[in-house]
Amino acid sequence: MTQPLPATLPDDLFAARADAIAAAAGELCALGWTPATSSNFSMRIDADHAAITISGRHKGQLGRDDIMLIDMQGNAVGTDARPSAETVLHTHIYRRWPEMQVVLHTHSRTQSVASRLYAADGLIRLQGWELQKAITGFTTHDSVLEIPVFPNTQHMPDLIARVDAWLDADKPLHAYLIDGHGIYTWGRDMAETRRHLEALEFLLACELDLKRLSS
Amino acid sequence: MTQPLPATLPDDLFAARADAIAAAAGELCALGWTPATSSNFSMRIDADHAAITISGRHKGQLGRDDIMLIDMQGNAVGTDARPSAETVLHTHIYRRWPEMQVVLHTHSRTQSVASRLYAADGLIRLQGWELQKAITGFTTHDSVLEIPVFPNTQHMPDLIARVDAWLDADKPLHAYLIDGHGIYTWGRDMAETRRHLEALEFLLACELDLKRLSS
Amino acid sequence: MTQPLPATLPDDLFAARADAIAAAAGELCALGWTPATSSNFSMRIDADHAAITISGRHKGQLGRDDIMLIDMQGNAVGTDARPSAETVLHTHIYRRWPEMQVVLHTHSRTQSVASRLYAADGLIRLQGWELQKAITGFTTHDSVLEIPVFPNTQHMPDLIARVDAWLDADKPLHAYLIDGHGIYTWGRDMAETRRHLEALEFLLACELDLKRLSS
Amino acid sequence: MTQPLPATLPDDLFAARADAIAAAAGELCALGWTPATSSNFSMRIDADHAAITISGRHKGQLGRDDIMLIDMQGNAVGTDARPSAETVLHTHIYRRWPEMQVVLHTHSRTQSVASRLYAADGLIRLQGWELQKAITGFTTHDSVLEIPVFPNTQHMPDLIARVDAWLDADKPLHAYLIDGHGIYTWGRDMAETRRHLEALEFLLACELDLKRLSS
Repeated sequence: MTQPLPATLPDDLFAARADAIAAAAGELCALGWTPATSSNFSMRIDADHAAITISGRHKGQLGRDDIMLIDMQGNAVGTDARPSAETVLHTHIYRRWPEMQVVLHTHSRTQSVASRLYAADGLIRLQGWELQKAITGFTTHDSVLEIPVFPNTQHMPDLIARVDAWLDADKPLHAYLIDGHGIYTWGRDMAETRRHLEALEFLLACELDLKRLSS
Repeated sequence: MTQPLPATLPDDLFAARADAIAAAAGELCALGWTPATSSNFSMRIDADHAAITISGRHKGQLGRDDIMLIDMQGNAVGTDARPSAETVLHTHIYRRWPEMQVVLHTHSRTQSVASRLYAADGLIRLQGWELQKAITGFTTHDSVLEIPVFPNTQHMPDLIARVDAWLDADKPLHAYLIDGHGIYTWGRDMAETRRHLEALEFLLACELDLKRLSS
Repeated sequence: MTQPLPATLPDDLFAARADAIAAAAGELCALGWTPATSSNFSMRIDADHAAITISGRHKGQLGRDDIMLIDMQGNAVGTDARPSAETVLHTHIYRRWPEMQVVLHTHSRTQSVASRLYAADGLIRLQGWELQKAITGFTTHDSVLEIPVFPNTQHMPDLIARVDAWLDADKPLHAYLIDGHGIYTWGRDMAETRRHLEALEFLLACELDLKRLSS
Repeated sequence: MTQPLPATLPDDLFAARADAIAAAAGELCALGWTPATSSNFSMRIDADHAAITISGRHKGQLGRDDIMLIDMQGNAVGTDARPSAETVLHTHIYRRWPEMQVVLHTHSRTQSVASRLYAADGLIRLQGWELQKAITGFTTHDSVLEIPVFPNTQHMPDLIARVDAWLDADKPLHAYLIDGHGIYTWGRDMAETRRHLEALEFLLACELDLKRLSS
């Protein structure tokens, strides 16, 4: 049963978020980070709602009709469109951090390969790269940036439990990888989230290059 | 002797297919997957006809004049243009599967190198990648996706016999590689076929990266 | 306290330099050499002033408002904008060489990885590449081109001391790398500096490829 | 002393050749094959003249003023512009083969690295790649395509002697590499020459990938 669109939610707010998501998706697709209809992107609308890409659409030419409204449990609101199974990974982040406004999940070759390579370790440890300073809160290349790699599963509650366990152990979390899959990262606005994503892609690629050259 | 254009075939159907092929070719060329006039693309028109790229044209700027009509034995229909020797690989797929509407054959560096590297094994085995789900019928990364690598030959009936032998052994087939050459993949419409091609290129590239990094 | 804009400095000179910097930044960003708001670019205006990119802006779409005026000690002039901590590395070059008009600092993956790989050696030694001739003063592939790799630090005077020590030892200097960070290069106009940067990126990438293939 | 422009040479023929060279140069530059003002391109005009790129210009935005007229000894005709030292490598090809109309010399990273890697062998041997059929005269992947790698030198007559020695030994020649430098290839029109160049770049890149993955 389709949930009715809440009367209190202004239409133009959804439209603005949908346009911002579509613009970001187009740029990330051009970089090759969203192959074959993979990846999904969302933005918070208010405390109870977010806009998210509809499952299975190619990310290169999204319009407003390719973005849907969801509540914070990941249910469709005011539409029959099917949200992606991974929608609950987005809403989980919005529920844990009220200040987070954007979640980007991409699927680049670097992200997929790095996740496979470090899956057994459970994390990738980055140190000594100036670009770590692009992650909010980092002020020096000497800091250590840990990105967890969680096992892949088609059962989302298992993934959410992994994220919760990491956070409940009081470990900082700016992004996570899923094995053989891709990355999730987030931020307080689109610029910060894009900066995080761009920096993490760069750092993972550098780390793989260094591994290739040092062996 | 040129076969006459069948009176029953509407002109605008051929034109629509030719335009769709040219648009796809331009995008695949921009990705670098059709070097030096290689690659060929086709779309089914009806039970007895298909449209296919004319041999030897650069794939970057195709127009309707670079696409020709063929029958399902790979003969030119209503034109003196020369179909590529590989045309019969396309029509073979249309004959085996009445539901297939599009065949794309590209020639990327990843496809060429992967085919050489796995030629002795006779196949590439993909498992553990989320993007396997982009292939129709696959619902989990845990599934096994096998892409056969057939020996290259300038004699097309040998290749067709290899494809038939694979299928007659009841093995699923979504695409095949030819050693030192490239990939063939197909689907029920252009979007599905492009998704298959994009996913397979990505998966092959990931597999090569992983091999490079794990050795 | 904001330093007043000097009455003697013509506005249109600053505007011309800002436009040239923004144009170069956009092209270097498109190459992927300025990830996640990294990198900074400057041009000399007169003996006492230069124009430089403001810290933290994305380099893809800079306008005049993203460029600021500084004096040769790296202080902001006529603006409250914050110059990057690395601004003093630019002014150091302008002070040492009155003929240098442009300083470009980028942060490509090749530059970052090469710097990590050769940090222990303290330099990268290039020989046998025809493209060495793109560096002013080089006329043959037989010459030796040394690019020092200095340790990274968030304390700029340490870096300046390293550059001075290299120069005081009478060693030629056309560019330097900072470990895990990126490259600085300079020239007598934008064309020469861009040529230096493009040649050095190419040479470092070739050197890494050769290392990968020879091991 | 500037040689006068021959009265018999129609202006619009030079202009047409210059435009074709500039268009090709722009496309090859966009591929990254002409870094830092390297590379040069020419087209035959008649039995005694050719148009060639002027030394030291960036290949991304050439206009007619960046192309000059030369005679078949490599001397400037009707201009004070300086031809590149390598001009005589172009005219040598036009003199040996009256049917050749275009010479392209590029300087991609793949070409530079491959040339270093195979310099000791003196040649690269390609076999088993379908794309060998893009070289005029090749009809099967089973054929052997040999590309010689000559030692680099700033003294052009030494290079010409190497090319002559290869040809005088009755070995087929479709292109040659110069160690640490780049490739020369040619053809009977621009389309054939571009096809040769694109195929050779692809084949060299595949060969390096295979070497990396097989070791």
